[in-house]
Amino acid sequence: MNQNTLYLTEIITVLGIVAFALSAVLAAHEKRTDLFSVVVLGIITAVGGGTIRDILLGVPVFWSQQMHFIWIAIVSSLIGFMCIPLLKHKLINQTNLYIDAIAIAMFAIQGTEKAWGLNFALPVGPIIMGIITAIGGGLVRDLLLQRPTLFLNKELYAIPVMIGCSLHAFVLSYLPEYTNVSTVAAIVIVFSIRYFAISKGVEIPKWAIFK
Amino acid sequence: MNQNTLYLTEIITVLGIVAFALSAVLAAHEKRTDLFSVVVLGIITAVGGGTIRDILLGVPVFWSQQMHFIWIAIVSSLIGFMCIPLLKHKLINQTNLYIDAIAIAMFAIQGTEKAWGLNFALPVGPIIMGIITAIGGGLVRDLLLQRPTLFLNKELYAIPVMIGCSLHAFVLSYLPEYTNVSTVAAIVIVFSIRYFAISKGVEIPKWAIFK
Amino acid sequence: MNQNTLYLTEIITVLGIVAFALSAVLAAHEKRTDLFSVVVLGIITAVGGGTIRDILLGVPVFWSQQMHFIWIAIVSSLIGFMCIPLLKHKLINQTNLYIDAIAIAMFAIQGTEKAWGLNFALPVGPIIMGIITAIGGGLVRDLLLQRPTLFLNKELYAIPVMIGCSLHAFVLSYLPEYTNVSTVAAIVIVFSIRYFAISKGVEIPKWAIFK
Repeated sequence: MNQNTLYLTEIITVLGIVAFALSAVLAAHEKRTDLFSVVVLGIITAVGGGTIRDILLGVPVFWSQQMHFIWIAIVSSLIGFMCIPLLKHKLINQTNLYIDAIAIAMFAIQGTEKAWGLNFALPVGPIIMGIITAIGGGLVRDLLLQRPTLFLNKELYAIPVMIGCSLHAFVLSYLPEYTNVSTVAAIVIVFSIRYFAISKGVEIPKWAIFK
Repeated sequence: MNQNTLYLTEIITVLGIVAFALSAVLAAHEKRTDLFSVVVLGIITAVGGGTIRDILLGVPVFWSQQMHFIWIAIVSSLIGFMCIPLLKHKLINQTNLYIDAIAIAMFAIQGTEKAWGLNFALPVGPIIMGIITAIGGGLVRDLLLQRPTLFLNKELYAIPVMIGCSLHAFVLSYLPEYTNVSTVAAIVIVFSIRYFAISKGVEIPKWAIFK
Repeated sequence: MNQNTLYLTEIITVLGIVAFALSAVLAAHEKRTDLFSVVVLGIITAVGGGTIRDILLGVPVFWSQQMHFIWIAIVSSLIGFMCIPLLKHKLINQTNLYIDAIAIAMFAIQGTEKAWGLNFALPVGPIIMGIITAIGGGLVRDLLLQRPTLFLNKELYAIPVMIGCSLHAFVLSYLPEYTNVSTVAAIVIVFSIRYFAISKGVEIPKWAIFK
């Protein structure tokens, strides 16, 4: 990666951490929790998925070498707690949803690439690791807050992640010369589906749901 | 182990993975989830217990070297999703319960032996690892679907597992020359108690339940 | 540490394990579970926090080399199950709460020191590890029993832990010559806040709770 790509990746990662932490603030607000719980849930939501991924991969958890992610999650959660009326404002809320969409797209593909780089259970392992990176933190947040997990609603959240990770794993397997293009394309695909899901209210199609 | 035992073990393992994945399909059907959730929950139920065991043992998760277990869980879940009316048929449902009983019996004893082979916290560690292997996946499935975990019902599910693993650990400690006999005997004991629990509706005895 | 400190630490650790296991017995009694569930939940509550900490630190789980903690949790749970009317007696119940307060104070600071000794993500990593050591087991217990987790009540439970671990991490960072004093002081501070929370019914202040 060249220097500009690195900067861009870092900026999106930071925005993603912020969006994840703020999603925890909103979820914690529903349950009227306290400041401490907000910060802990903010951290868990922001870095939980990558943490589970790293434990399964058998490598050190990523934030032990990148503590600024923890700090960003803490500060975002604190600001979110103090500015909750602002956070619940429609415009901010929508913006946060779109940033969250960029974040899960990027975290998912990063997770897939990390597992691929470690030759972990190719080719399905990296897809699973990408999905876990993107949705793991939110799952633990919802379990701890006793909210319905994403398995229980009809939102198009994990499915675009799975599609993007699978496409990227396909390219890494059979067309490795297109890896860079595919990284960007897969992120764009995940984000685009999420974008339509949020803006048009597109849900999981009927045929894919138990009657 | 000789060649025939290996084949038999492999066949029972595959059947067990199928039974675990199908139990997830049935649980997911209760909650009217979607196809993606069914597949994810199928994988988690099938390999979750062994995954938690391997993390606690500090060894690579078993399916990273045996990806066919993941594929079998995926395919079973997909078929289960499409054939749900069949799956809910009494005969199939019963058969599935008995295969599940064979599976937990075998996975439990395999888990105990894996921990024993690693000299992990003998003699209690292997018993704990056997129990986790057998029931861990189902526990995570129930948490994610917000169903009552097995701690909250009166079914004889984990207790036979504990009895079998304890007996096997006893033999491994004091009568190691009978290891092979004990492996088979312990599996048979776990299955037999489960068999009576399913076929006769035997539940946890009253004296062992809080009044 | 000199010999007397070691003895004292060991005694408090054992008492803490007992208090944690008995808290699981009381929680399991609310849900009218069975003897097996009581023992499993007793073990999980007693060693769960330290187990999650060790997995995140990437070191062998502590009880694999200190099996007596598992035995103490098992025996405490069994005795608790048999003596539940006694356990629910006000005096015993109160005593148990105070022993639990000593236990979380000591486990938290021990967790912080273990992470510090491993140079894990200084200085925030050890604070997080201290908190996880103290509250992780109780969290898993409440999830498995489907009780409200501590994020959903207003009790001053995790906040004193966070304060103590943060103070201790501050001293380890900037005043390392006072480490021994700080170990004791931080334990006393966590316990004191918990003491007031229990005896005076002090809860999380209003300003720190979402309206």
